[in-house]
Amino acid sequence: MKIEGRNSVRELLKTRKTVDKILIANGMRGAEAESLLREIKNSKVKFQFADKSVLDKESETGRHQGYIAFVSDYKYAEFDDILESVKEKDECLIVVLDGVEDPHNLGSIIRVCECAGADGLIIGKHRSASVTDTVMRISEGSANHLKIAKVVNINQAVDSLKENGIWTYALELGGGDIYKSDLKGKVSLVVGGEDTGVNKLTVKKCDGIVTIPLSGKVNSLNASVATGIGVFEVVRQRRNK
Amino acid sequence: MKIEGRNSVRELLKTRKTVDKILIANGMRGAEAESLLREIKNSKVKFQFADKSVLDKESETGRHQGYIAFVSDYKYAEFDDILESVKEKDECLIVVLDGVEDPHNLGSIIRVCECAGADGLIIGKHRSASVTDTVMRISEGSANHLKIAKVVNINQAVDSLKENGIWTYALELGGGDIYKSDLKGKVSLVVGGEDTGVNKLTVKKCDGIVTIPLSGKVNSLNASVATGIGVFEVVRQRRNK
Repeated sequence: MKIEGRNSVRELLKTRKTVDKILIANGMRGAEAESLLREIKNSKVKFQFADKSVLDKESETGRHQGYIAFVSDYKYAEFDDILESVKEKDECLIVVLDGVEDPHNLGSIIRVCECAGADGLIIGKHRSASVTDTVMRISEGSANHLKIAKVVNINQAVDSLKENGIWTYALELGGGDIYKSDLKGKVSLVVGGEDTGVNKLTVKKCDGIVTIPLSGKVNSLNASVATGIGVFEVVRQRRNK
Repeated sequence: MKIEGRNSVRELLKTRKTVDKILIANGMRGAEAESLLREIKNSKVKFQFADKSVLDKESETGRHQGYIAFVSDYKYAEFDDILESVKEKDECLIVVLDGVEDPHNLGSIIRVCECAGADGLIIGKHRSASVTDTVMRISEGSANHLKIAKVVNINQAVDSLKENGIWTYALELGGGDIYKSDLKGKVSLVVGGEDTGVNKLTVKKCDGIVTIPLSGKVNSLNASVATGIGVFEVVRQRRNK
């Protein structure tokens, strides 16, 4: 979907909608243009300058005023709905992503969560990739079959999970061997971003740390590969009950 | 490393070296230029046309004649060396890639193989990504700590693995539950490409098929995520002995 015009784009930045990209015409000047550019930069949305002719071509309304935003139509779930959906269950698997910014990783993570039959995926509103059209494509459409919720505060989400009787583990270095940890029942795995891992405060809030035993020299896995190993260890333990 | 000049680039195509990209100056005409372009296309190497000025800038010799190839310095292992290195071992893990063409996937696969302590990775010469600088970067340098061999014929490689007492399993849909399969001892996992999976003839040659139990609607995992789940199931079974 396209959102066109200066004020519409400015309003869009205040919503929960997922913006794939904003096209800005070259040579936009003046106080209004500068303040909007600042807002766009602050929102961390991807933007790109292009010739006015490019925007003219893309425009569906003919009134783009130098700004066209490409918005994803993906419908997020509410965090509370995910909690509600597992309330009566004996076992559940919820994955929490703390700062996964790469769309390829997010797409692969969505795909493996859906394949593992996960009950939901929680992503942060900040420092996180959103479910853009690119992510949707990489997920092979599995984003449509997985409940994905955006939350403002990952730590509060972890608190809520725990309050709802879900054991919450950070998938990180330096914890207990994941293969010797009990991951049956109602569990949640918190996975960190590409470089930073799970935020230290978030790790502290978790019930424990589970670690994939690495034996190489590099000792760091891609976030989606690590998530895959983690969620399928949960699957294995359940089948093995 | 850069290889410059028409004949040098033509000779390069006949070697085992990994070519990241060939730059060709716009407007190269004549029988020689056409036959070289045909050879470049047949070799499946990535190529790109550019202004002569771009090649002038890239050139280190000043004699590029319209052709500059960018070559990776990665040193492949020999397949026989990998076989030799596991000869006296009680257990080993070798991963065979059949048609993984995406550099991101290859990089992630190298990374997870190295982290799992795999003894080697076998990739085909055709229909396969090579260890380019991009792949090296994505692998976070772990390609330098893993023996990677290129083979012309994946089926022959599978035969050799079996002759050397290594149990060879295709990681595919429709086989036995990987969590109920015995993957201790000397094993090799054959993983297929993004869309095609493992070649049917190759699957037939394997000692068996092991399958990650999927319970979603999409039922297909990213190649690197599937490899990660597979190789770490081998790790788990060994630690659990």
